[in-house]
Amino acid sequence: MARSDRFLKACRLEQPDRTPIWLMRQAGRYMEEYRRLRERHTFMEMCKTPELAVEVTLQPIRRFDLDAAIIFSDILLPLEKMGAALQFTDTGGPAIDRPLRSKQDVAAMRAIDPEQDLAYLLSALEMTRAELAGKVPLIGFSGAPFTLASYLIEGGGSKHYQLTKSFMYRETKLFHLLMEKLTDMTLANLNAQIRHGAQAVQVFDSWIGILSVMDYREYVMPHMKRLFAGLDASVPRIHFGVGTCHLLGLMKDAGGDVIGVDWRVPIDEAWLSMGRTRAIQGNLDPVTLFSPGGYLERQVRDILRRVGGASGHIFNLGHGILPGTPVENVDLLIRTVHAYGGDGA
Amino acid sequence: MARSDRFLKACRLEQPDRTPIWLMRQAGRYMEEYRRLRERHTFMEMCKTPELAVEVTLQPIRRFDLDAAIIFSDILLPLEKMGAALQFTDTGGPAIDRPLRSKQDVAAMRAIDPEQDLAYLLSALEMTRAELAGKVPLIGFSGAPFTLASYLIEGGGSKHYQLTKSFMYRETKLFHLLMEKLTDMTLANLNAQIRHGAQAVQVFDSWIGILSVMDYREYVMPHMKRLFAGLDASVPRIHFGVGTCHLLGLMKDAGGDVIGVDWRVPIDEAWLSMGRTRAIQGNLDPVTLFSPGGYLERQVRDILRRVGGASGHIFNLGHGILPGTPVENVDLLIRTVHAYGGDGA
Repeated sequence: MARSDRFLKACRLEQPDRTPIWLMRQAGRYMEEYRRLRERHTFMEMCKTPELAVEVTLQPIRRFDLDAAIIFSDILLPLEKMGAALQFTDTGGPAIDRPLRSKQDVAAMRAIDPEQDLAYLLSALEMTRAELAGKVPLIGFSGAPFTLASYLIEGGGSKHYQLTKSFMYRETKLFHLLMEKLTDMTLANLNAQIRHGAQAVQVFDSWIGILSVMDYREYVMPHMKRLFAGLDASVPRIHFGVGTCHLLGLMKDAGGDVIGVDWRVPIDEAWLSMGRTRAIQGNLDPVTLFSPGGYLERQVRDILRRVGGASGHIFNLGHGILPGTPVENVDLLIRTVHAYGGDGA
Repeated sequence: MARSDRFLKACRLEQPDRTPIWLMRQAGRYMEEYRRLRERHTFMEMCKTPELAVEVTLQPIRRFDLDAAIIFSDILLPLEKMGAALQFTDTGGPAIDRPLRSKQDVAAMRAIDPEQDLAYLLSALEMTRAELAGKVPLIGFSGAPFTLASYLIEGGGSKHYQLTKSFMYRETKLFHLLMEKLTDMTLANLNAQIRHGAQAVQVFDSWIGILSVMDYREYVMPHMKRLFAGLDASVPRIHFGVGTCHLLGLMKDAGGDVIGVDWRVPIDEAWLSMGRTRAIQGNLDPVTLFSPGGYLERQVRDILRRVGGASGHIFNLGHGILPGTPVENVDLLIRTVHAYGGDGA
């Protein structure tokens, strides 16, 4: 049963038999199985049809020796039920028509009832748990309030997050109200996911790294504290962001049993800067998977050497796996991680 | 003559009468004077016609109480003469046709002779110096080799810098050859700018923050050391990057009399992390200029309070000023910085 509890043990700072590994966006476009299904269904259909979401969730688990499954979904989906006009374009990622601008827009945002509004997701979690039959644990997830707010305000991705920050600075009360509503939604969403089978949850605050330390403390941290205080603590909670070198201490203080870091800071330094009181997840640059095998192995072993066998490391990429990633390198990555704990390579 | 030497004194860690301030992209689209000229000329024409470049360089100096001028140009222009097919689109920023891919592409890159190839820039520097007549110093600039390499390889801006990093990992020797050629060009370019009137130079390594500590050390740092070792040390050299929380120590070791930082890390912490052995430039978030006046003033004073009157601070934004920035807030920013040193506000 080693594979089944590696991930959860590491989340609890206990020592598993091998370093566990899973990959952000492990179910996705780099897999042929996924692309074949995607030819016949829109992204939205795949998320909202439990049978398809289950199938996609399981594809990487069948193909690779991964130590956790993560439910196939998207952080923006719950925003639809709050009133956002969400679209996924085939090329340019997500887009939100009529981005959030006014007091009326924020006031109009509805609370969600996950049992009703995210029934497709909760069913998919239950069905996936049944299919997995304890082979590996199942992770649920949500976007964090700030990252969700930035999509709502910008209407999509952004380079400078100018609208989001201007909103924050100019309409501070309204921004906090928006963050409160998003925190309520995230809490309801994640606790429902846990009730319906998620054995761990990850909060993606993907774009938080664009904020200064001062702005994080003032505009985001109180909401993140409330979020983590309200999350069902019977399962591990992973707190992830990109470009967070300057925020790691505050993110740890805001909450999370595991802090997810990107590739920028060496993992031992990142861990030290958090006092090693939480587990750490990371931190291979996803682009390294495009490098030749020998180079990739050296980079993977460098991370494991830096961790030095300490309890509480979950191997992952520093951000989602990229489309076009060679599948054989994903396999090599996972084998290299597992071999390191085993024969001492 | 206080305004004339504030900036240079601060670069040398000496105490000026007030904190000097200039703004990255201070000549640009947020100014009506600029937009009027831009209606009649392409961006390229404005860069390559010395009279126009001088006029645009001087526009913000006439309008605001800035303590330095920076020559109007673009970091990508010298790449044209190395053989790159450079274009500036009216909407989407710069684009390079036929991005760099092969050994042949790198081999084909030519060395430049700034006296010939950048004659328009050197003339503009000389003419601007004459026009300024010692009122404020004139800054020259260049892109850093990595940032230039990333444009050449990606063909423009990028989200994940996947092609650049893949090139680095897969074609390591070729990447170093490219960096050598770009370092040679940057050296020739900046030293020529200094000969023709630049009283300080800034090296923009704008996209360096996407690299890990390990990658910076291996792929970039040796070239940056050679660059700074070869630069005419009779003028201050500013070394700037965005998202460099994890790289500040290495950037300082690579070189520069002044390290330019973005808004993410509080300026006192950033300065401490570099041992305060160099001057520091920064670090107001450019988006703060879109906030109400009172809020803006508080943020500016917070930076000045953190610096605490220490010698060697040049006030600047953490990145270039954004189009659409209210001109009255630029004026308020500059007045707030200068007042702080004066009446102790």
